[in-house]
Amino acid sequence: MIIVIQCIDQVGLVAAISGVLAQQQLNIISLREHVDKAENRFFLRVQVEAPANADAVQDMLQAELTTVLPVDAVVMVNPLPEKRIVLLVTKEYHCLGDILIRHYFKSLKASVLAVIGNYDQLQDICHRFDLPFHHVSHEGKSKDVFESEIRNIVDRYAPDYLVLAKFMRILSPAFVANWPGRIINIHHSFLPAFAGANPYRQAFERGVKLIGATAHFVTNDLDEGPIIAQQIIPVTHSLTAADMMRAGKEIETSVLAKALRLVFDDRVFVYNNKTVVFE
Amino acid sequence: MIIVIQCIDQVGLVAAISGVLAQQQLNIISLREHVDKAENRFFLRVQVEAPANADAVQDMLQAELTTVLPVDAVVMVNPLPEKRIVLLVTKEYHCLGDILIRHYFKSLKASVLAVIGNYDQLQDICHRFDLPFHHVSHEGKSKDVFESEIRNIVDRYAPDYLVLAKFMRILSPAFVANWPGRIINIHHSFLPAFAGANPYRQAFERGVKLIGATAHFVTNDLDEGPIIAQQIIPVTHSLTAADMMRAGKEIETSVLAKALRLVFDDRVFVYNNKTVVFE
Amino acid sequence: MIIVIQCIDQVGLVAAISGVLAQQQLNIISLREHVDKAENRFFLRVQVEAPANADAVQDMLQAELTTVLPVDAVVMVNPLPEKRIVLLVTKEYHCLGDILIRHYFKSLKASVLAVIGNYDQLQDICHRFDLPFHHVSHEGKSKDVFESEIRNIVDRYAPDYLVLAKFMRILSPAFVANWPGRIINIHHSFLPAFAGANPYRQAFERGVKLIGATAHFVTNDLDEGPIIAQQIIPVTHSLTAADMMRAGKEIETSVLAKALRLVFDDRVFVYNNKTVVFE
Amino acid sequence: MIIVIQCIDQVGLVAAISGVLAQQQLNIISLREHVDKAENRFFLRVQVEAPANADAVQDMLQAELTTVLPVDAVVMVNPLPEKRIVLLVTKEYHCLGDILIRHYFKSLKASVLAVIGNYDQLQDICHRFDLPFHHVSHEGKSKDVFESEIRNIVDRYAPDYLVLAKFMRILSPAFVANWPGRIINIHHSFLPAFAGANPYRQAFERGVKLIGATAHFVTNDLDEGPIIAQQIIPVTHSLTAADMMRAGKEIETSVLAKALRLVFDDRVFVYNNKTVVFE
Repeated sequence: MIIVIQCIDQVGLVAAISGVLAQQQLNIISLREHVDKAENRFFLRVQVEAPANADAVQDMLQAELTTVLPVDAVVMVNPLPEKRIVLLVTKEYHCLGDILIRHYFKSLKASVLAVIGNYDQLQDICHRFDLPFHHVSHEGKSKDVFESEIRNIVDRYAPDYLVLAKFMRILSPAFVANWPGRIINIHHSFLPAFAGANPYRQAFERGVKLIGATAHFVTNDLDEGPIIAQQIIPVTHSLTAADMMRAGKEIETSVLAKALRLVFDDRVFVYNNKTVVFE
Repeated sequence: MIIVIQCIDQVGLVAAISGVLAQQQLNIISLREHVDKAENRFFLRVQVEAPANADAVQDMLQAELTTVLPVDAVVMVNPLPEKRIVLLVTKEYHCLGDILIRHYFKSLKASVLAVIGNYDQLQDICHRFDLPFHHVSHEGKSKDVFESEIRNIVDRYAPDYLVLAKFMRILSPAFVANWPGRIINIHHSFLPAFAGANPYRQAFERGVKLIGATAHFVTNDLDEGPIIAQQIIPVTHSLTAADMMRAGKEIETSVLAKALRLVFDDRVFVYNNKTVVFE
Repeated sequence: MIIVIQCIDQVGLVAAISGVLAQQQLNIISLREHVDKAENRFFLRVQVEAPANADAVQDMLQAELTTVLPVDAVVMVNPLPEKRIVLLVTKEYHCLGDILIRHYFKSLKASVLAVIGNYDQLQDICHRFDLPFHHVSHEGKSKDVFESEIRNIVDRYAPDYLVLAKFMRILSPAFVANWPGRIINIHHSFLPAFAGANPYRQAFERGVKLIGATAHFVTNDLDEGPIIAQQIIPVTHSLTAADMMRAGKEIETSVLAKALRLVFDDRVFVYNNKTVVFE
Repeated sequence: MIIVIQCIDQVGLVAAISGVLAQQQLNIISLREHVDKAENRFFLRVQVEAPANADAVQDMLQAELTTVLPVDAVVMVNPLPEKRIVLLVTKEYHCLGDILIRHYFKSLKASVLAVIGNYDQLQDICHRFDLPFHHVSHEGKSKDVFESEIRNIVDRYAPDYLVLAKFMRILSPAFVANWPGRIINIHHSFLPAFAGANPYRQAFERGVKLIGATAHFVTNDLDEGPIIAQQIIPVTHSLTAADMMRAGKEIETSVLAKALRLVFDDRVFVYNNKTVVFE
């Protein structure tokens, strides 16, 4: 049983929380706590051995914890173990392919409800996995129209998260505002280096010796949202910009998979454009 | 203020501990807890904001925590911030040099009391840093005599830890037994691969693509003690065994430095030939 | 156009080879050369700009290079760009899934002819990709019979390589001898550490701080063949053996993919139980 | 014996070079070649077995290679094995300490002629190693005067390279122009991310999950010169900006040491604000 809590910091929070758990005779297996002194915020994730009467205990805990914690506290006792997600894609297959395989073999910790693509290249692979694919072209229409078409489809599925698995269109603040803190993107650079378009071309031209990828929550500012996970790989002078792009796909896939695992496992807290990640 | 606790696990430990802290109005900055279910052991490291009357609070905490915890509990409130250490070396300079520089610039979190070498090559560098160097040759004497000579010198300094900074002699169980859990060694391979002599030669002959280094506590079984930290670097076919040895020195230096920092910062717990490390 | 050469070393080899290339007005884009002094062996991989009349040039080069090189030389001008492979699997899906996605999207540099499994769990995923799956159970039959059934199927496809994508049965020397240097395995540890069964359990019990995976060619000695690629990831005390197994799957997938890319791209030479890899 | 060559690319260069080597009966141990197609430039580093009459062969090779290569070719046969360097420092000790230890134990592949500091904190450590330390304060004087004082001292030593081992003052283009391609700097971020001042503060505020360091040649544009080497380490939410600075020092030290080894070993070519590095 997992319990995650975020609230303003004050003396005695851990004592109050662990007191409630001890009263229920719940044994703590692991506990992670972080206090951001500058922001005076408290973050906690605790895993306890599941009791026999889990449902009853869960309700009791939710009520009692809310009572002993500050009024701003966000408390989740036993968050949904399987999140419901919709994927947005363009043409690149590597992140989608990885997610589909994990989904098919039930190791994603999420249920893929549908895939939306602004091209139709990835339709066949989705159908092979019996997943609905919606082709919403951006061509010949305003961004407003394009986004409202996507939004209509997304709303039909009411997902917990939107995952941009190499979706190469910039989304408007208005669109993003519909799912605050619930859109996850993979950016093909080690942000904040090489934000914007063609990061591999930029990296090649700068002659860097490492290239990276960044999974982050999407906010109004492009490529500026809270970072969930980052990875890099070494590169040399012998790689062209195209080679870098190929090599980069490996870490894009890997870092998005890691970020999804962390988020779906309720290990990521967001505040003030940063994340607290209890790995 | 740091508090570290190890004891058998039972329901309510975190509540008991954090209750004591809350009573003293101590605010928890960070808390790490681990339970080894198989062994039923509880490990905790908590950092609290230092109170004004630190000394009085420290004594009170030590007493109160001992009262509320199981009888086997080992409780350390505010462990010594600067450990006292003696180094054992042979001829290789890289780990010693790194430690001497950190010590000179006061970033080691430990005080180097003396260096003991079974050769005298490293005497000059120690004297340049105004540190006592004791040359105890192993030649022409039994292991018993050799070790008792070392022991006499070490005892004079009564260190908290012995650090084998590339000490290339195997120590007897009788010698090791004098400082249980207090001798730290750097082994020049990714243990348990290539235990024993000439690990780089072994690695070269096996044609591995990674080489590593391991910092561990010394026990009776050579290269079998609890592991504190490990690192690796990639190697290729183009490296000779000598090249691997040179490359390996970089990670030996780095992984020993990391292990010392973790141990001296009271982040490492030992039990049953394993470590719990709260990085 | 790629040319790979392996032969005994002698003075003037690069001059002889590059002389032949220059005569054909071929511009060298990149050249990698290695000499193993101990074994007196010469390895070379050179990439030249493709000429207009590639086929004619290819034949001429093959003939002329053979003439100027030692009699033991193995020369490949423009090796087959797409290798033909058969996969052997058991129940674990992660390596297979990754290979199937790359194959479907034509980034594997190889054609998957068929998949053979000693269980049928992975049949459905193969069929979703329109690939033949052969279920050959090992139960209730001798190893001899089991292996000859597999061999009969493999022979039907006449592949360039067999890839053991988490095939959990030990193959006999007689079986392995059919495809010398052409069977690639992924072992779930950082060899030579934790060879044999249950490496994650072994790693957990030893308390290591890194776990790894190794892709290697299969020889008669289990887990002792020439290593192609290795990777590691850090682990902590908080992971159970099962957690390590899950985490390890990520690098198993990654390191097998890397090894296949290197082999299929003709960047790997084998001799004397080692590899030369021109990444 | 090492030979390094840079020139415009054309067909037949490797044949011409290796022909000259074969004529002298020189056996090639390893050869690295790179062609930048976009810039049409050719880079080569070759290691041959040293002949008996090395000096005579060296002169002959230099002459013959110059004859067979394009007129713009820069050819170095057996470059100086031990470069002569001057260090510039401010107050931070970690890079200086590492270099001094390597220098003292003769593993730097360079001779440290002197250290210049704009503060005097690092004077004592230099004197402990019997190295001249020149204190040139920047206070109370114009940048022009400050730099000309430094230049006067540097000129006295006529070094091959200036190494900025955490020299925290920005150098003017006029100063830099005195040693084109011969000033090496360590920047405390993964460039181009967080160029300029306080990179660890910037990294902390952005909430990145990796921090890095970059060793590069200094050009007129601050933090924009050709990159030699880069490394990163993972960080988490639990690190303050000060913690990141401390952690970053480890990779600053490591990446500068690596860059110096590569440059001093004649493995780094510079052109067009990029490097070719034959590791």
